[in-house]
Amino acid sequence: MIRAVDVIRKKREGETLSTAEINWMVEGIARGDVADYQWSALLMAILLQGMGPSETAALTNAMMRSGVVVDLSMIPGPKIDKHSTGGVGDQTSLILAPIAAAAGVVVPMVSGRGLGHTGGTLDKLESIPGFRVNLDLDRYREVLRETGLVMIGQTAEIAPADGFLYALRDATATVESIPLIAASIMSKKLAEGIDGLVLDVKTGDGAFMRAFEDSRLLAETMCDIGRSMGKRVVALITRMDQPLGRAVGNAVEVAESIECLRNRGPADLRGLSVELAAEMVLLAGLAETIDEARDACVRTLKDGSALERFRRLIAAQGGDERVVDDPGLLPRARRTIELRSERVGYVGGLSARAIGMATMLLGAGRARVDSVIDPAVGLILHKKVGDWVGDGEAICTLHVNDEAGLDEATALVRGAFHLVNEAPEAQPLVVDRLEADVP
Amino acid sequence: MIRAVDVIRKKREGETLSTAEINWMVEGIARGDVADYQWSALLMAILLQGMGPSETAALTNAMMRSGVVVDLSMIPGPKIDKHSTGGVGDQTSLILAPIAAAAGVVVPMVSGRGLGHTGGTLDKLESIPGFRVNLDLDRYREVLRETGLVMIGQTAEIAPADGFLYALRDATATVESIPLIAASIMSKKLAEGIDGLVLDVKTGDGAFMRAFEDSRLLAETMCDIGRSMGKRVVALITRMDQPLGRAVGNAVEVAESIECLRNRGPADLRGLSVELAAEMVLLAGLAETIDEARDACVRTLKDGSALERFRRLIAAQGGDERVVDDPGLLPRARRTIELRSERVGYVGGLSARAIGMATMLLGAGRARVDSVIDPAVGLILHKKVGDWVGDGEAICTLHVNDEAGLDEATALVRGAFHLVNEAPEAQPLVVDRLEADVP
Repeated sequence: MIRAVDVIRKKREGETLSTAEINWMVEGIARGDVADYQWSALLMAILLQGMGPSETAALTNAMMRSGVVVDLSMIPGPKIDKHSTGGVGDQTSLILAPIAAAAGVVVPMVSGRGLGHTGGTLDKLESIPGFRVNLDLDRYREVLRETGLVMIGQTAEIAPADGFLYALRDATATVESIPLIAASIMSKKLAEGIDGLVLDVKTGDGAFMRAFEDSRLLAETMCDIGRSMGKRVVALITRMDQPLGRAVGNAVEVAESIECLRNRGPADLRGLSVELAAEMVLLAGLAETIDEARDACVRTLKDGSALERFRRLIAAQGGDERVVDDPGLLPRARRTIELRSERVGYVGGLSARAIGMATMLLGAGRARVDSVIDPAVGLILHKKVGDWVGDGEAICTLHVNDEAGLDEATALVRGAFHLVNEAPEAQPLVVDRLEADVP
Repeated sequence: MIRAVDVIRKKREGETLSTAEINWMVEGIARGDVADYQWSALLMAILLQGMGPSETAALTNAMMRSGVVVDLSMIPGPKIDKHSTGGVGDQTSLILAPIAAAAGVVVPMVSGRGLGHTGGTLDKLESIPGFRVNLDLDRYREVLRETGLVMIGQTAEIAPADGFLYALRDATATVESIPLIAASIMSKKLAEGIDGLVLDVKTGDGAFMRAFEDSRLLAETMCDIGRSMGKRVVALITRMDQPLGRAVGNAVEVAESIECLRNRGPADLRGLSVELAAEMVLLAGLAETIDEARDACVRTLKDGSALERFRRLIAAQGGDERVVDDPGLLPRARRTIELRSERVGYVGGLSARAIGMATMLLGAGRARVDSVIDPAVGLILHKKVGDWVGDGEAICTLHVNDEAGLDEATALVRGAFHLVNEAPEAQPLVVDRLEADVP
């Protein structure tokens, strides 16, 4: 007979839990015979003593099976999703999902909201008037079948054990455990009914995992989970030292995404979106090589088919599709304030974390899970790492509705720019690539 | 502002918590803004990362102050208690409290119940017909004033935070932490209103702490707490490899205690009781040296004053004092079964843990906190370590009411005896002595 106290003791002693023990603990949440205070003690023991690959896979599987695992088999084609571990100005989902769909991938995407200095895909989508992210699973399948992509929020049916455990981790300082982070992400993603997954694991100042070694370990752990569950997983480790693109906020990022889908917009954001979409196309088996996949993706930008997919997605999810042609229909802030440089030099660093915090203070992000966000506010960066800043040149435009956090936000933005005398060496955005081979 | 999640994170990282943080967490139990699942995560972090002396003292103090700290200042004389960490056949409290009281010490004793293989003072006292251990604090003071000693159970007013935390620890595999064990014991003892405390820290097979190093660390930790709170504490580390005395159970141990109070009974049990009582007399300042204190204690056995105190205690707490003269009035089991040896040799070892488990199976102890015990059952050992066992000689008499656990108990008792060819060297019962000097 398995008892919670014995399982906790075993992990406390650094031993390896069996799949039966992990299943029993996760199922005990729904059964009601494993208490939250027992789980929190186990979470702390896991954080301090670690978990091996077999335990992490078992935990992921049990959390996934705590709810519905969506059956998408009636929809033809390879189903591939992408997940980012979170960054600043990172709206690649809005760009790559239409690209990949236009290139033939079926993209069933369940996304999250922003927290702290990071933004969230759902918040960005909801800045499009009328756009609904809370579809039920039937409508989720319908939209996916009709448009080849769908972008919704977490539903109560998907991995409810993760919702329970995440809330506990948040209250008990047990968030920062790589196996627990990996299991949380993968349990939700694998419940979507996907065949494969592309991961964008951020590293650096604006990422949750700042150190490259931690980001790489997280990527490896998630690839291991994918492998053990028979899913193809590719992980790119990408730099999040400065924000992606130039827009940071919600409506401003949607407008920038539309620019990228017109094959314009910032090269870093468009480039990373194409790269991740190409990995999806490759995973889907729709190309032989990554170069071929990349070419296919770029074609969807040039021929307008990606933009057309985005338009259809907006319409299918109740949004005003006219924003695609007229981004002026997106919510706009009452004031814009241009910040001008008081110094000269090359931008040697641009802290993604500080810019993210500034945007949160303007009202575009959440200090707490229950904060209300303002879709209209945010900022546009006019200078990024490597750019020359002349005397009095504009470095950033703030989009402001509420003056409350303005002074602090302004100071954060100014402080985020680190000017140097020599142009810094350009750094590649993608630092590493990992792949889980499925036998 | 202190937040629970930050305190947990700090301990998770192995840092030292401040007294303010510890107070805030303990007071949060009564305030209701620190959840049980937060405390259990903190308990696991404490178990795995440890706590230093200042943290352990602060935790003890906060737990003590979570309830009433009894004021005994209106009762003249030095108030000294004794606490044992738990063993098998360990009824020294029933013997030493009357001895110390007869020697002039005021003995306010709050005791516990047995669990697992160990017995508890309250269970033993309750085998005396009518004896009440659940006195309120007013009656506690009254009995103490009238008879110079009192023996009651934990009340809801004393260290309620300990009750909360102990239940959590029991359910979350966080019992085995030396700072947590020390704080739990000391918070309750220091709330009794005592001036000094003698600790009997058991070590060996039948103790909760089997390894000497752990027992010594626990003793040191408790002495440190006493010192930091300005109380004189002496700790004896004593062997619990074989049961103390010959009787193991409840009524059978009361009968054996009365024998000891008549200056008869097993030498080991009587000797240790006198030694602990002598430490109490010394702490109380009623003797100059331990030898002088010991002589004073032995005198109370010889002149009958200790037995007389026990008689008055029983009467004051509602019990039938005639048991002192006629132990036949104590509950008796329906059957006795004599176990005879099937081998010959010297007793080289006699597992206290196995004997304790056997007694529990007969019904004298608790498998779980809510088990009901039978006061009449138990066993009497006829051979102890160093004794010669001849062919077919009686080694043990079982006192049995319920046959359910009998076979298993019999096998455990037989297995507890380890016979050898050579008489083992005699080992001193007291292994070490520690003292907290109060400046």
